[in-house]
Amino acid sequence: MCPGSFDPITYGHIDIVARTAEIFDQVVVAVFDNPDKGYLFDCEERMALASEALKAFPNVAVERGSGLLVNCARMRGIRVVIKGLRAVSDFEYEFQMAQTNRALGNQVETLFMMTRPEHAYLSSSMVKELAKHGANTRGMVPPVVADALKRRLTPGQGV
Amino acid sequence: MCPGSFDPITYGHIDIVARTAEIFDQVVVAVFDNPDKGYLFDCEERMALASEALKAFPNVAVERGSGLLVNCARMRGIRVVIKGLRAVSDFEYEFQMAQTNRALGNQVETLFMMTRPEHAYLSSSMVKELAKHGANTRGMVPPVVADALKRRLTPGQGV
Amino acid sequence: MCPGSFDPITYGHIDIVARTAEIFDQVVVAVFDNPDKGYLFDCEERMALASEALKAFPNVAVERGSGLLVNCARMRGIRVVIKGLRAVSDFEYEFQMAQTNRALGNQVETLFMMTRPEHAYLSSSMVKELAKHGANTRGMVPPVVADALKRRLTPGQGV
Amino acid sequence: MCPGSFDPITYGHIDIVARTAEIFDQVVVAVFDNPDKGYLFDCEERMALASEALKAFPNVAVERGSGLLVNCARMRGIRVVIKGLRAVSDFEYEFQMAQTNRALGNQVETLFMMTRPEHAYLSSSMVKELAKHGANTRGMVPPVVADALKRRLTPGQGV
Amino acid sequence: MCPGSFDPITYGHIDIVARTAEIFDQVVVAVFDNPDKGYLFDCEERMALASEALKAFPNVAVERGSGLLVNCARMRGIRVVIKGLRAVSDFEYEFQMAQTNRALGNQVETLFMMTRPEHAYLSSSMVKELAKHGANTRGMVPPVVADALKRRLTPGQGV
Amino acid sequence: MCPGSFDPITYGHIDIVARTAEIFDQVVVAVFDNPDKGYLFDCEERMALASEALKAFPNVAVERGSGLLVNCARMRGIRVVIKGLRAVSDFEYEFQMAQTNRALGNQVETLFMMTRPEHAYLSSSMVKELAKHGANTRGMVPPVVADALKRRLTPGQGV
Repeated sequence: MCPGSFDPITYGHIDIVARTAEIFDQVVVAVFDNPDKGYLFDCEERMALASEALKAFPNVAVERGSGLLVNCARMRGIRVVIKGLRAVSDFEYEFQMAQTNRALGNQVETLFMMTRPEHAYLSSSMVKELAKHGANTRGMVPPVVADALKRRLTPGQGV
Repeated sequence: MCPGSFDPITYGHIDIVARTAEIFDQVVVAVFDNPDKGYLFDCEERMALASEALKAFPNVAVERGSGLLVNCARMRGIRVVIKGLRAVSDFEYEFQMAQTNRALGNQVETLFMMTRPEHAYLSSSMVKELAKHGANTRGMVPPVVADALKRRLTPGQGV
Repeated sequence: MCPGSFDPITYGHIDIVARTAEIFDQVVVAVFDNPDKGYLFDCEERMALASEALKAFPNVAVERGSGLLVNCARMRGIRVVIKGLRAVSDFEYEFQMAQTNRALGNQVETLFMMTRPEHAYLSSSMVKELAKHGANTRGMVPPVVADALKRRLTPGQGV
Repeated sequence: MCPGSFDPITYGHIDIVARTAEIFDQVVVAVFDNPDKGYLFDCEERMALASEALKAFPNVAVERGSGLLVNCARMRGIRVVIKGLRAVSDFEYEFQMAQTNRALGNQVETLFMMTRPEHAYLSSSMVKELAKHGANTRGMVPPVVADALKRRLTPGQGV
Repeated sequence: MCPGSFDPITYGHIDIVARTAEIFDQVVVAVFDNPDKGYLFDCEERMALASEALKAFPNVAVERGSGLLVNCARMRGIRVVIKGLRAVSDFEYEFQMAQTNRALGNQVETLFMMTRPEHAYLSSSMVKELAKHGANTRGMVPPVVADALKRRLTPGQGV
Repeated sequence: MCPGSFDPITYGHIDIVARTAEIFDQVVVAVFDNPDKGYLFDCEERMALASEALKAFPNVAVERGSGLLVNCARMRGIRVVIKGLRAVSDFEYEFQMAQTNRALGNQVETLFMMTRPEHAYLSSSMVKELAKHGANTRGMVPPVVADALKRRLTPGQGV
C-alpha cells in the first residue's frame, strides 16, 4: 500500500508508486480522506486524477483510505506500507509514525524509499501554490493534473 | 518547573517529571493556558488529569501557568526549568526559546532531558489523533487519561 | 533583492540587508503581500517600518513585492536574491524553494547568508509573541518597531 | 539483501533482519569486507557470529560481500536491499548512497526500515567501546557475541 | 559533573561550568583521558589549564576522569551529569549516549544546557586549527590557554 | 573566491563555479593544500584538473590556496567567498565556519548556493571510492578527471 492525500498526485508520488510496482505483485494506492483537512480536490477528484496518472501500471489499484492507516491496511490484509522520504523533516515525522504504529500492536511493516533527487523539492502544496500564481506546473505533475489545477485555481473561474 | 500544555498528560511527560523529582527537592508542573490555542481539555481538566497522574510524587505540585514562561518562573522564585527533548525539531525550537529567554535578561536557566527512546514517538497531539479514530491509548497515557479521551472523543458523545 | 514579509522588520533582517548592501551596488528590499496570510501590520505599515529602519543605507530601496518571488525579481531585472539562514529547518525549506525556482526555468540565482549567531533566535513571530505578553523587545527590533508593536499589541488599545 | 560490516552483529541488526525475513521469501545477510577498514573481528569471525545469531531464521543466509554493494547484489540476482535508519545522520548518508547507486544505472532498489526506538542508540562501535571498558553488553548483543567481545577486548588477554 | 576532554578548555566550556555552578552546590569538572585519542595537551596540562581558567568558582573542582563516564560518576557518588548542546549533530550523539547509559542500568541522570549562541561555533578542535595557522584565539579561550596554544603550536618551537 | 580541496573536481563543483561566474566579474577557484590531509592527487595535479575542467569560463582563474581561508582571501583583496550547500551536515559545518571567520574579525563575507538536486549526492570522496572499485565515474566528473582517476586507482598500476 502507498498511502497519501494525493491533493493532487505529482511526479514524485508517481515515481514512488512505479518503483513499488516493480518490487511487489500488487500495489494499492490509498487516497486518504481526513474530514479535518481542507483539500483543494475532493476525494473522488483526487482518486480520478491518481487513476488517470497511474493507468499504465496494471498491478496498481487506486482505492479510498479512511481512519487510521494501520487499521486500513490490516482490514485489506496488507502487510507492507511504502512511503517516500524527501528530507530530514519527513524522516522525523515518519519515525514518529512508525513507532506509533508499532505501539498499536499491529503487524503492518512500513518501508521507505528515498525520493529521486530531482523530485525532492516536489510537494502537492508547493504545486498548488505555484498554480495559484499562474506558474506552469507541467514539469511537476502529469498534463491531466496540470489542467485540473489550472481550471480550479485560475482567478475569475472560481474555486 | 516542568512547563507544558499537558493536553493531555502522557507517559512521556510523566517520565520527565519523575526523573526531575529525583534530582530536585521541589518540582512545579506548570499547566500553561494560552488563549490563542485550541485545547481539547480546558485548563482545569488538564490540571486535574496531571494531578491524578502525578499523585505518587510527594514533591511535585501541579499549578496553572500563564504569560511568558520566564516571568511565570521568576514570579515563583524558580531558577531552573526542565524540558524534554525528543527529536531534532524539538532541539531547534528549544534552542530558539532558550536564546530568547536569555535575551530577555532573565535569571532562569533551562535544562533539558533526553526523552526515553520508547517515549520518543509520544506526543499529546498524536494521542488525540489516535483516540479520535477509536484506537486504544492505554500504553501511551495513564488509565484516567485514556478514559477521559474516550469520553471526549467518541463520536456521538459530543466534544 | 532581499525578500520577506517583514511583519515587522527585526535586527536579524537588518543585519542581512546591511551585509548585502556592502557586496552589491543596489539592493531592493521586497516586502511581500500574500492575501492568504494574516499579518499584524498591513503592507504599507511594514514598508514604512522597514524604510525607517534601513534609512542609513543609501543603496537600499524598499518596495512592495507580489506574486511569485522569481517572477517579481525577473520583472525588475534582478538576477540575485539574498536570504538569511538561521537553522536546519530554514535550510530544508530554502533548499526546496531553490529547486522549485530552478524547475520554473528562471534565471534568478538565490544566495544565502548565515545569520549572525546572536540573531539566530530572532523571528518576527517570536517578537510579536513577546510583545503580546508585554515583554520589552528593544534588543530585538529598532525603537520605531518596538513602539509600533507596543501600540498595536497592548491590551485595551485595540488591534 | 541486508548488507553491513556486522563488527559485531547487534540486536539492532537482528531486528532488521527478522522483520525483513517476514516480508521477503529469501534474505541474504551480506557481511562486507573492506580492506581499508580496521575491523575488530575478521570476516570469517563476523560471518560466524552473524550465522549463530540468526540461526533461528530458516530463510536467512549469511554470505560474504565484497566490492560495490550494487554490483554485489546484481551478481546474485538480488533486486532489493534493506537498510535500517536510526537517526538523521543515517538518513543523510543513505540518501547520498541511494542517489549514487541510481547514478550508476543499476536496477537495485534500496528500501529502509526505521529501527525500533529501543535499538536506536545501538551501534557496533558503541558496543565495542563499552566492552573495552569492561561494561556488560548482554542487553545489546546475543550471548555468543558478548562472550566473543569479552575474550577479544579484556586487557591482558591480547587483541 | 561536567565531563569532557578540555583539549584545551574554551570560553564555551567555561560558560557551561559557570551556569552549572549557579544551580548546583558542588561541581566536578572531569577531564577524561582516553588512551586511544591523540591529545595536543596531556592530561596534567589539560587539568592545569582548566583549573586556572575556573579558579574564580569556589564550588568547582577539576579532577581526572577515566573509564566509562557513568562508572566514573557513580564511583564519586555523583547523580547528575551536565553537558552543553551546540548543534543538531551534538544532539544526535548525546541522545545515543544518554540511551546507552540508561541501558547500562545506571542511576546517573544527564541534563543538557543550550550553549550561548555566541559560543555555538566554538570547539577545541577549531581553536587548535586556528592556532596552528597563527590566528589570534584570545576571544575564544582565556589568555592562559591562548598562550599555551601559541607556545605549543608555533612552527619552529616544536610540538 | 570558490575554495576547496578539489581532490578531484566534480560536476558538483563545476556547477557552483559556473553559477558564480555568471554573477561576479572575476572568480578565483582556490585549491587548498593542507599538509595534514592525505590527498589522492597532489596540489599541482588538482589544479591542473580544475583548470582543464573550467577552461570554458574566461573569468575564472585557478590558484593555490594555503593557510586560513579568510587570510588567503584578504591577502588577495577578495571580499566574497562562495560555497555550495548539499545537506544538513554541510549546513552545520559551514555555520560553524562562518561564525569562526566572523570572530576572527575579518571583512570577508561567505555566501552559499544550494547544490542542484542531481548533484546533491556527489562528493569527491564518493567518486574516489567508486573509482577504486572500478565503477564508471563519467556521469560525475569530466572525462579528463575520470581518466585520471582510472589511471591512479586501477589495481596493478600503482597509486
